[in-house]
Amino acid sequence: MKKHFSFEAIMNMEKQERVHFINSLGGFKSVSLLGTVNKQGQTNLGIFSSIFHIGANPSLIALIFRPSPPERDTLRNILETGYYTINHINENIYQQAHQTSARYDSDISEFDITGLQPEFKNNFKAPFVAESNIQFGVEFKERIDISINNTIMVIGEIKEVYVPENCLGEDGFINLEKANTITCSGLDSYHKTVQLDRLSYAKPDKELTSIA
Amino acid sequence: MKKHFSFEAIMNMEKQERVHFINSLGGFKSVSLLGTVNKQGQTNLGIFSSIFHIGANPSLIALIFRPSPPERDTLRNILETGYYTINHINENIYQQAHQTSARYDSDISEFDITGLQPEFKNNFKAPFVAESNIQFGVEFKERIDISINNTIMVIGEIKEVYVPENCLGEDGFINLEKANTITCSGLDSYHKTVQLDRLSYAKPDKELTSIA
Repeated sequence: MKKHFSFEAIMNMEKQERVHFINSLGGFKSVSLLGTVNKQGQTNLGIFSSIFHIGANPSLIALIFRPSPPERDTLRNILETGYYTINHINENIYQQAHQTSARYDSDISEFDITGLQPEFKNNFKAPFVAESNIQFGVEFKERIDISINNTIMVIGEIKEVYVPENCLGEDGFINLEKANTITCSGLDSYHKTVQLDRLSYAKPDKELTSIA
Repeated sequence: MKKHFSFEAIMNMEKQERVHFINSLGGFKSVSLLGTVNKQGQTNLGIFSSIFHIGANPSLIALIFRPSPPERDTLRNILETGYYTINHINENIYQQAHQTSARYDSDISEFDITGLQPEFKNNFKAPFVAESNIQFGVEFKERIDISINNTIMVIGEIKEVYVPENCLGEDGFINLEKANTITCSGLDSYHKTVQLDRLSYAKPDKELTSIA
């Protein structure tokens, strides 16, 4: 049996209940650690579930910043330095990743707090997370202010990518499951995945086939 | 062993390879069916993996439209009528859902093609997918043109929600896994999930606990 929630019922929810509810409705989300430095070289690490693909040509990735303090160090560092890393979260590090959402002072690095290792390589200006299996470096391109709810979209271009060799498909597909990348739902629920199938490119009047 | 891809290596990929590769990097994504009608009442159904949460107060959801033909019916209908439904995909309907990505003519309804049932209820102006366990109705609020890659972001407000009663948590959390909602990666890979844990709200100097 489905329960129906009218607009009024949603608006009458207690604030934190609505946050859980609406966050869940969006479905499963990517969840990654975003690594930055400030102008003085102080590292910062934050967990984000608002990262999404917007196009492959050019290779762009976007994320949403909410108007809340813990995300502000990351945003400030991106705007100051122009660079950041995105690091997939796996089953071994999701608790440490979750802990980065606590409101630490700006002079504290979440790398130190969690014990996750900053990894600087190939002269990229932001730290990767050594324990992450899929890592990529991004250059800031554009900020779009979303006035309807005071959030900020940041768009960046993917400049460097590190992927385990055994997770790379011939057609460019990356087997995230094999890389132990996890997904999240709502504010705080973490999930591993079990592949059902990969399906062929859909065309009218053509049967789908498995390409897994 | 990780393989390193420089910016040049990424740009030198064959176009379709880069599409798979960059799409995969974004991590696991929500995947849903978007139901609309045009001014004449002709139904349309399309699969989207670019839907994301942007805020709970007001209750907003966004999605990205790429500049490709199959998505155009959905976008036109949203702008014409102002309403659409978002319907979570489960293990029983993901092949039918995938088939909606084929380029059918505008006068063909993907409901008819796939056999998925349109469900009109509570006077909402767009059709839900009867086979979907989590459904919600959305009102168009704002269009933002993203000039950097010629995509369009559409923001809507959540007006009605239908969720199985046994998937509702006391704190507002919706158990997507119990509702059989699935996730996707890349362009064509579908996955069910296995919950690792729900973690308590993170605070400095406080141990995380399981709230699953």
